[in-house]
Amino acid sequence: MQVRDCIVSAPGKAILHGEHAVVHGKVALAVSLNLRSYLQLKATTNGKVSINLPNIDTFLCWDSNELKRLISDSGGRREEGKLLDAELVRRLREFVGVTNGNLDTRNMATLSFLYIYMSIFGSGELPSMTVSVWSELPTGAGLGSSAAYSVCLSAALLCASGAIPAPLKEWDHTARWCQEDLELINSWAFQGEMIIHGNPSGVDNAVGTWGGMLRFLAGKIIPLSRVPLLRILLTNTKVPRSTKVLVARVKDKINKFPTIMIPVLDSVDAISCTCERVLSEMTCEPITGEHYNILEELIDINQHHLNVMGVGHPALDTLCRVTLARGLHSKLTGAGGGGCGITLLRPETDSFVVQSTAQDLRDCGFDCWETSIGGPGVQQHSPVSVKEEVLEILNKY
Amino acid sequence: MQVRDCIVSAPGKAILHGEHAVVHGKVALAVSLNLRSYLQLKATTNGKVSINLPNIDTFLCWDSNELKRLISDSGGRREEGKLLDAELVRRLREFVGVTNGNLDTRNMATLSFLYIYMSIFGSGELPSMTVSVWSELPTGAGLGSSAAYSVCLSAALLCASGAIPAPLKEWDHTARWCQEDLELINSWAFQGEMIIHGNPSGVDNAVGTWGGMLRFLAGKIIPLSRVPLLRILLTNTKVPRSTKVLVARVKDKINKFPTIMIPVLDSVDAISCTCERVLSEMTCEPITGEHYNILEELIDINQHHLNVMGVGHPALDTLCRVTLARGLHSKLTGAGGGGCGITLLRPETDSFVVQSTAQDLRDCGFDCWETSIGGPGVQQHSPVSVKEEVLEILNKY
Repeated sequence: MQVRDCIVSAPGKAILHGEHAVVHGKVALAVSLNLRSYLQLKATTNGKVSINLPNIDTFLCWDSNELKRLISDSGGRREEGKLLDAELVRRLREFVGVTNGNLDTRNMATLSFLYIYMSIFGSGELPSMTVSVWSELPTGAGLGSSAAYSVCLSAALLCASGAIPAPLKEWDHTARWCQEDLELINSWAFQGEMIIHGNPSGVDNAVGTWGGMLRFLAGKIIPLSRVPLLRILLTNTKVPRSTKVLVARVKDKINKFPTIMIPVLDSVDAISCTCERVLSEMTCEPITGEHYNILEELIDINQHHLNVMGVGHPALDTLCRVTLARGLHSKLTGAGGGGCGITLLRPETDSFVVQSTAQDLRDCGFDCWETSIGGPGVQQHSPVSVKEEVLEILNKY
Repeated sequence: MQVRDCIVSAPGKAILHGEHAVVHGKVALAVSLNLRSYLQLKATTNGKVSINLPNIDTFLCWDSNELKRLISDSGGRREEGKLLDAELVRRLREFVGVTNGNLDTRNMATLSFLYIYMSIFGSGELPSMTVSVWSELPTGAGLGSSAAYSVCLSAALLCASGAIPAPLKEWDHTARWCQEDLELINSWAFQGEMIIHGNPSGVDNAVGTWGGMLRFLAGKIIPLSRVPLLRILLTNTKVPRSTKVLVARVKDKINKFPTIMIPVLDSVDAISCTCERVLSEMTCEPITGEHYNILEELIDINQHHLNVMGVGHPALDTLCRVTLARGLHSKLTGAGGGGCGITLLRPETDSFVVQSTAQDLRDCGFDCWETSIGGPGVQQHSPVSVKEEVLEILNKY
């Protein structure tokens, strides 16, 4: 069995507003982050299955017959009501050598690939192929790099298996799948996320699949039809933090000062709703400076609220101060306590200002990227539509 | 008629929590600030009435007969339902040369003195005296310096007139008046404030009179029985600001983002109530580090909320950052947009830390005083209970 080659990409995600508040039943807005993961699938005829993940220095190759032996006699059927095939997961964990506590990124990425590959192709012949993934996203920074990876895997393998068509026409540079196919990609990507994270919210894979912006409320994920593309700087302070500790800190503060903190959550909820309304207005009326003024005010207010919740950090204060000195507004994104922040750029923000600000931030020891939010979700690429340097990396293997 | 000499003092005021929110029907906590105004009244026999206000470079002297002629035939009676004798105010403005728009501090201080002096003594002989006032408070910084002045004037002149007794016994260093006398002092001080400010809230003169802490809600002022004395640093950033502009800015922001801002006001209200409860606990149970931890958390949260309201300033951010680097927590007090801030000191805060922090702040170009909040209101002093340097200034005239 020979499959078709393809190149796909999926975006990362950032939380625009509502991080932490979402844990307490408030709205959060998740947006696609146009730092993307790229996957190239190449059919081979050597009976081997290879995966190359240069970001995490992982290069593995298996004999497809060896893999075939891992498929259970039950034919990979899932237990009633369970999304994952527990027996396949157990066998793969044993095969890869994952002991229970060992949640190493490389092992998780390997497991996730093998699980999706074998679930999709398991009932027939296992095709030989080389899958290479390169991501512009830093890993473990809360930017949805694992989801972008899972989404790319799902899209490419479903496409290779013929479960969904390849949307790219001869004359296209990039193409997207229809709604029904996206739902299938998303559901497989969610399984990949379950392998990697155990109990994911489903937001990251949904953003990777649909792109744009998602409204997330009480476990329900609603993709928003139209949002403008916003230029941003993404900054990684590189201050390590534990999401679990930060979530617990906010909870403790709410329990300690309920009358003070509950209104703050309500205010964050209103910020998310106001932001959603303004972004939607920006897609159906001429964009004005006042739209951007409001977006900036919402960023500032939310950043103060996040500090009130106790998830700020001196490095994030520095980010805000350094960018404000250039007239730009920033907030943390995600768990806080360090980690990443986003800085809104206005359409008229001069590229000199952007470059200087990025340099200022790098001088603080931070990583900084000029990118955008609200861009497309998973898509298929013709080789010419992939940046030279990315293509070079993918073609190395 | 010869009156008795006396020395009195009254404290300034700071807003501990609730500035701006109070304008929108929320609780504010006003506390006495132990930077005091001192007044010395000396009886003379030269038929002259002299006032010396070295802080504002004002030294005036009148013939008491000349002043007597300004008393209206109606004997200084107020119009029905009016607190001030409008005819006396009119004549004094003309006498002092205050044209309508001229709200110069010196003229206002002079008017206020003459109004209280002539209202209290007007029905009989005008006694000759020299009144000298020296204040540790900066003027025009929102710290209630005019109210402390009016409270001192009222207490000293009422005492000199015999309307209230001199509470100081031979063996006392300082003494306070009984509740009834304080109410009379406060009502005259409020008239002084009306002369100076037009439409004062009454909070500043109430704090100057009662000291400690006052709860202010919807125009109602409730002195709180017992509060602990808290050490603070008071910092004047010396950034000029207009209270009127700042109040309007907050109002505009509430109108622009009601769903976001109203919860913030609710949160500030809860901060004031929580702070009041903690301070009251500190007077009836052993004071612990946790009490101070909570006071610090409330300060931090409120400072963020004030930034959300748009009344922060880079100089205030600097104050917070510089003090936090020494483990101390600060917030703006009063109108914000510059102006003053308070920094809470813990009982165990080492004097080296206090001195170094104060020096750091002075290096930023700020004025900085180590003082306390929650101390006594207006009091009478024996000369030995007045600091040497203050006595020296008062005795110069």
